[in-house]
Amino acid sequence: MHRTKVKIVEDALDANNTIARANRSDFDRESVTVVNLMSAPGAGKTTLLECALADLDGVRAGVLEGDVQGSMDADRLAALHVPVTQLNTDSGFGGECHLDANMVRSALPGLALDEIDLLVIENVGNLVCPAEFRVGEDHRVMVSAVTEGEDKPLKYPLMFRQCGLVLVNKVDLLPHLDFDLDRFLYNLDQVHPGVPRLLVSARTGEGTDAWREWLVQTAREGASERAAAPA
Amino acid sequence: MHRTKVKIVEDALDANNTIARANRSDFDRESVTVVNLMSAPGAGKTTLLECALADLDGVRAGVLEGDVQGSMDADRLAALHVPVTQLNTDSGFGGECHLDANMVRSALPGLALDEIDLLVIENVGNLVCPAEFRVGEDHRVMVSAVTEGEDKPLKYPLMFRQCGLVLVNKVDLLPHLDFDLDRFLYNLDQVHPGVPRLLVSARTGEGTDAWREWLVQTAREGASERAAAPA
Repeated sequence: MHRTKVKIVEDALDANNTIARANRSDFDRESVTVVNLMSAPGAGKTTLLECALADLDGVRAGVLEGDVQGSMDADRLAALHVPVTQLNTDSGFGGECHLDANMVRSALPGLALDEIDLLVIENVGNLVCPAEFRVGEDHRVMVSAVTEGEDKPLKYPLMFRQCGLVLVNKVDLLPHLDFDLDRFLYNLDQVHPGVPRLLVSARTGEGTDAWREWLVQTAREGASERAAAPA
Repeated sequence: MHRTKVKIVEDALDANNTIARANRSDFDRESVTVVNLMSAPGAGKTTLLECALADLDGVRAGVLEGDVQGSMDADRLAALHVPVTQLNTDSGFGGECHLDANMVRSALPGLALDEIDLLVIENVGNLVCPAEFRVGEDHRVMVSAVTEGEDKPLKYPLMFRQCGLVLVNKVDLLPHLDFDLDRFLYNLDQVHPGVPRLLVSARTGEGTDAWREWLVQTAREGASERAAAPA
């Protein structure tokens, strides 16, 4: 008698991770690089996307827009003539405070993955739970506005630790704040030493070229890696 | 045979509400008025408490400080010589993004309720889930910073709808922002018509006297109502 022994590992029991891997597999098949963009409410995710997505040097971008309710951000981004899919989380009890892999999976049929190179998933504004749920992304990027204070890396360490890029936004307001930028960067390095960071202002455009360039490079590198990988 | 028929109502199945009522009963017994203070990360909850708690015209205040991790805010408030109890939510998977009634209940033994008139519960910085969990409070107050944008009431309606007072903070920055205050107040009235609101700046002190006075009045009215209620 043939017997197969399946070793149950903790990770395999985690339904979210299983679905995230399925999403990732679909993204890989269509050669789409995926960025999960996270921040507190009002940190400037949508405005930073408006700065960057209008011209990505030929990289074709799409957006999956996560909100508890409404479609205001999706409407703003659609004006850039970028395909945008809205995902609302308010069907659950009071509204989910994050996107999880299954929610993203439910939106995949509406995304023309074969027509884009880069998918940006704009998560629900929250510094806690979005960091706990992988959705199948290649990269996690977060926005931390200087108006939120220097202590945020220490108070929400998981979010800052799990990101590959931190956009420090609203730097145009620094002259009007008591915010100590050196202290913030020191705190950031305490929880995630050396993590790449860009100082930006979505309002004045300062630093947003570097953010745009990061997206272009990230999408191109993703495509190259997939082309080089064994089928 | 004596038979008792218990009608199960949905609310009775909600363990959180049951525990919230138990908390409320304990607060009532000790004649403590409880304010649940909520906001997005970095909106200024702690600084607004620093403005108000140092002198409450004889009202004795205590603070229950909710954070995913750390005790920075509790340390700041303890400097005011106000009793502060820290409640960290990071024992769960990745850290809970809100306080619930059971977490607050677990902190009650550490609170000298008989020595205070007013308990402020500073919730975890988050505009979604804290609004979904009653903890036994009398009043819910939220802080919305003008740096977060005019659209927040529309994007996080449950939070704005469930509050009895909205502190519109960081108004000192209005000259440096594209924030349209009238639009924000219009959006606020769309989701919670006529909700009391105070324009404040924790940084300059503008409007914070009214906030301090609100806390004093609220504590005194709570005490009067309890004294008048049948035992």
